[in-house]
Amino acid sequence: MPNLSNSPRPGVLARYGALLDLPPHTIPVTLQEGDTPLIPMPRLAEELGGGFELFVKFEGMNPTGSFKDRGMTVAISEAFGRGARSVICASTGNTAASAAAYAARAGMRAVVIIPEGKVAAGKLAGAVAYGAEVIQIEGSFDDALSLVVQISQHHPIALVNSLNPYRLEGQKTAAFEICDQLGTAPDWLCLPVGNAGNITSYWMGFRQYHTLKGTGLPRILGVQAAGSAPLVLGHPVEHPETVATAIRIGKPARGEQALEAAEQSQGRIIAVTDEEILHMQRRLAASGVWVEPASAAGLAGLARQLREGQLELSELRGKRVVGICTGHGLKDPEIIAHSMPAPRRLPARLAALEDALLGAA
Amino acid sequence: MPNLSNSPRPGVLARYGALLDLPPHTIPVTLQEGDTPLIPMPRLAEELGGGFELFVKFEGMNPTGSFKDRGMTVAISEAFGRGARSVICASTGNTAASAAAYAARAGMRAVVIIPEGKVAAGKLAGAVAYGAEVIQIEGSFDDALSLVVQISQHHPIALVNSLNPYRLEGQKTAAFEICDQLGTAPDWLCLPVGNAGNITSYWMGFRQYHTLKGTGLPRILGVQAAGSAPLVLGHPVEHPETVATAIRIGKPARGEQALEAAEQSQGRIIAVTDEEILHMQRRLAASGVWVEPASAAGLAGLARQLREGQLELSELRGKRVVGICTGHGLKDPEIIAHSMPAPRRLPARLAALEDALLGAA
Repeated sequence: MPNLSNSPRPGVLARYGALLDLPPHTIPVTLQEGDTPLIPMPRLAEELGGGFELFVKFEGMNPTGSFKDRGMTVAISEAFGRGARSVICASTGNTAASAAAYAARAGMRAVVIIPEGKVAAGKLAGAVAYGAEVIQIEGSFDDALSLVVQISQHHPIALVNSLNPYRLEGQKTAAFEICDQLGTAPDWLCLPVGNAGNITSYWMGFRQYHTLKGTGLPRILGVQAAGSAPLVLGHPVEHPETVATAIRIGKPARGEQALEAAEQSQGRIIAVTDEEILHMQRRLAASGVWVEPASAAGLAGLARQLREGQLELSELRGKRVVGICTGHGLKDPEIIAHSMPAPRRLPARLAALEDALLGAA
Repeated sequence: MPNLSNSPRPGVLARYGALLDLPPHTIPVTLQEGDTPLIPMPRLAEELGGGFELFVKFEGMNPTGSFKDRGMTVAISEAFGRGARSVICASTGNTAASAAAYAARAGMRAVVIIPEGKVAAGKLAGAVAYGAEVIQIEGSFDDALSLVVQISQHHPIALVNSLNPYRLEGQKTAAFEICDQLGTAPDWLCLPVGNAGNITSYWMGFRQYHTLKGTGLPRILGVQAAGSAPLVLGHPVEHPETVATAIRIGKPARGEQALEAAEQSQGRIIAVTDEEILHMQRRLAASGVWVEPASAAGLAGLARQLREGQLELSELRGKRVVGICTGHGLKDPEIIAHSMPAPRRLPARLAALEDALLGAA
């Protein structure tokens, strides 16, 4: 067997397992997730005013294309180790694909419960590709979540929604990695907030690493979409709406903890419009990093704070800011394809191409 | 600035640049490509007969979701370093997305020329997302390729199709990485063959590493799709057809070199049907690795060779086999979505879900 501990990407349990609160029966089930790039974004930093260092932590470069793999490898490893042979979750997106992939890796059965209503086939394709059974219930997402909780309480079917505490343990590893990549925690961490498990995990992870290694703590800017901003509004949103489907959640499971993380870190939780999100998606891609819309929310929030003066450029001078991009643009090509103009058509002649390209150059 | 040379993924130029034949003016333009996982596939090896070690080199975990990023970082770094400010390619798929991403990273203009006919919007979404200009010509893919060659000869617009020799230099790094991950070259390397640049690069890379480090040489099994198999048939295919769009090429640019690589390595080039490709795509996903159809061709070829006895299991005993998976399944979700059954529907009640899941268990 190859020496996978020498591998550039041994997976988050091999790398950070000793720092995670896991039962001894855990048996690693990995697809070599984690070790995602921390990409410098000097041009975008200049456009936002300059004087600080900006990085994107590109979590879309996990095996199933989203950050969910960090928590899922841990949740599935724990479930597999205690002998569970089936996993279940309520999801129509990134969680379902990740659960299906890790269950497949372990040889376990994966069941995905989706709510009533129109389902985007592209969003489910990942889960189906990895062999999950998909069941649609005649009810809402909350009904679906309630059902998977109940069935996991009565039967040996492991729940892998983010109510599963091992998901959060695994997601802490992103904070560890950022500290290892930068040498310390960044000064600010900007990230999208939907169900709020991720912001909760980052804050847990940064605090733990600081206690162990004195890496410092970031201030956290959590960013919701304006049409789906329960933590900003202070109450659940019955019908959340946003193009950033990965954070279209009206009743976050970890809302309290998210608010605590923002407060304890001397940060804040704000909302941005869909237009701001899509604009930042384009700006990131213009530096070579294509992310799904939700992933752009964190830095869209930073841009808004700077524009409106809630955050002064002088406060950022010489500081390091990390934006978390949770999913790859390939997760939602429709958002691009739908607004794509028809390509310009030309005769197949050099002169025509020269006119088109050099005339405009 | 962070110490990116300590980063787990500094990019292929930082890691292997000294082994690539590049002009001194080259200036690295990176998205931290490479360092892709080499994933053990013990279950699939058993299903194929067992007694050997099988790994997937998952090149879909590059920044734009395909192996093209290895060659593109190098081609763009060379072009940028010599002062080119525009790049051009003929492509409707992975090459276009990669060219657009690295051009964006460098602040260069990217132009993508596509042939006449129906264009799958999803396939172009990547290039458009990264800001490429897309021009459709009234002609074939060959016409498009001919045009981009001509315009790059007459104007300071860098050609980044695989005719660009720096693309092949960059793609060699995948061979280096496999040797570094395994300690030596594998005994067999199985990979899809379309335009044949990749098989050519792997063979160049393994030979170079063997000369430098004595890592040995693999036998190479190159696999084409039956409807698009010019190297097996011995003549160009006018209208290539296969679900494996990434290798749907009737006149490979590097056909001669591919045949040489197969012969010199004591390997071979064979063809498999679309059914075999899609079957292997499902088998790979059943171990947690979802790839685009073309990526499954290499191991579909291995399965056929073993089934038909052209390769005896006894020959593989104790050996190490690596299958190259060139692109992520997210590159072609339609192939899954189109054949996806409608989800089963249930009332939102625990008893109904119990019946459905445990009755069938």
